[in-house]
Amino acid sequence: MKYGIIGVGALGGFYGGILANRGCDVHFLFHNDYNYVKENGLKIDSILGDFHLITPNVYSSSKDMPICDVVLVCLKTTNNHLLPSILKPITNSQTLVILIQNGLNIEKELACKMNDIKIAGGMAFICSNKISKGYISHLDYGKLTVGGYNLDVNAEKKLKQVAIDFEKTNIPFVITPDLNDARWRKLVWNIPYNGMCVALNTITKNIMANKDTRSLIKDLMYEVIEAGNKCGAHIEKSFADDMFDNTDKMSPYSPSMKLDYDLKRPLEIRAIYSNPLSISASNGYEMVKVKMLEQMLRFIEKEYLEIKK
Amino acid sequence: MKYGIIGVGALGGFYGGILANRGCDVHFLFHNDYNYVKENGLKIDSILGDFHLITPNVYSSSKDMPICDVVLVCLKTTNNHLLPSILKPITNSQTLVILIQNGLNIEKELACKMNDIKIAGGMAFICSNKISKGYISHLDYGKLTVGGYNLDVNAEKKLKQVAIDFEKTNIPFVITPDLNDARWRKLVWNIPYNGMCVALNTITKNIMANKDTRSLIKDLMYEVIEAGNKCGAHIEKSFADDMFDNTDKMSPYSPSMKLDYDLKRPLEIRAIYSNPLSISASNGYEMVKVKMLEQMLRFIEKEYLEIKK
Repeated sequence: MKYGIIGVGALGGFYGGILANRGCDVHFLFHNDYNYVKENGLKIDSILGDFHLITPNVYSSSKDMPICDVVLVCLKTTNNHLLPSILKPITNSQTLVILIQNGLNIEKELACKMNDIKIAGGMAFICSNKISKGYISHLDYGKLTVGGYNLDVNAEKKLKQVAIDFEKTNIPFVITPDLNDARWRKLVWNIPYNGMCVALNTITKNIMANKDTRSLIKDLMYEVIEAGNKCGAHIEKSFADDMFDNTDKMSPYSPSMKLDYDLKRPLEIRAIYSNPLSISASNGYEMVKVKMLEQMLRFIEKEYLEIKK
Repeated sequence: MKYGIIGVGALGGFYGGILANRGCDVHFLFHNDYNYVKENGLKIDSILGDFHLITPNVYSSSKDMPICDVVLVCLKTTNNHLLPSILKPITNSQTLVILIQNGLNIEKELACKMNDIKIAGGMAFICSNKISKGYISHLDYGKLTVGGYNLDVNAEKKLKQVAIDFEKTNIPFVITPDLNDARWRKLVWNIPYNGMCVALNTITKNIMANKDTRSLIKDLMYEVIEAGNKCGAHIEKSFADDMFDNTDKMSPYSPSMKLDYDLKRPLEIRAIYSNPLSISASNGYEMVKVKMLEQMLRFIEKEYLEIKK
């Protein structure tokens, strides 16, 4: 199977790299780092073992890439408007596109623009950073949870083949039968911590050390659970306690949106906040505190993006 | 009538100063600036005319002050725990204490600790700054709105005498028959703008220039109006539009809590947020977004007060 990797950062660099390192046929699309990686290869430090891909298959345009059987999309959702033009040259009706991204409704948005491809959604539970050009550091975890969005029997088979390829890498790869439920469960963590770490310019540890923000995080979690369940998920209320306890045990952590904020990049507000808010509202439930957080994030992002201009 | 001024900052320095300048018998209690003002007097630049009190009656302890007929308390509410010991030497059962402060329930808190004094609440609509030791700059407005909390007939008469003294200063002085209503009306502005300017580290102008925060401010105002009306106020919903329009017309403005935040001083969270929240809750209404803002403010304040330690 030919793999295409779109977005070779902390996620795409690691997952694509480890597949290539285990002998899979992987093709990487680069934006800024093409020349550097063409010269120097792709270096990955991982708790599973360091390695260096000397001559990976690298491209600066998807027009030069082969048609792929599987495409892992590891871009930020803020770039998803680029996906149709990127994917068109490397996909056909048999291609399985896995969106390893945060948020909600992103599979549907892509399906509306490209109705001939097969789409799955992926959620990464991983601690990985891009250190510099062509250099990824994988610090902890790695599990991928993937669920089909519009798969036919062939695409389902292909997804199972991906799972088998990942078995060789020692990265846990779980196929979930309910993508919507899995996406909402991920939001139970992502919505409170991403936004509050940006709004309060802090990290998870400090939020968990303060009784007021502890209480606020829990309330936000309950809103997301209620919204998810109104939208077809089946999340027990105690799931909030589990997420809470896990976060208490985590090392001090900057969620991805906080990293974007620190680097003054666009924030994934639409996928992580606006889409869940509007889908929940259309199912009759208003996430009042999540809405307030979304409004504050939009203000914060706009202030620094305008200064940047 | 003998006036005592407790807290000689932007408010107390201006109101006490202008009364003294118009011939009233005013006694100023200082904390840090006593020696400086003893030497150099109190200088006030005002749109109503600049003046310099060369030898005001200044004190470094209320024990040295005379019993006062009227005391204007112009401290931040974060210092209100000091009030009983400050007020005891300068008050008797006839003394009228006017709390020119922000927030809710402060008159009751004081009355519970000192049940022998007469208390009124005052709200200042003024743009005034303390520039340096003994130097106040009054830039705009100045209106005082005062309402009795536990006044008897004599205290009511005394309050009217204060109004007459203020007439000489050209500062509008309005006696309101409904202190609770007036306090809640003030909160309709104070709760949204103070907190959001701190949480977003910005000024009113930027908040009003962004459609997301405009919408959020309006929602917060509606929560406060609903809470106020559940607690005995009578505020029409259109009052939010009035506050909103006024703020649109205002010059770029840092609310008092934003100044406290910039100077890393304690924030008036209890008087402006926690008291209204708990009184509203005890009347059956939860201000959901205001609660979230309070929790964020508590986190923000704690972070910098702990660093300061």
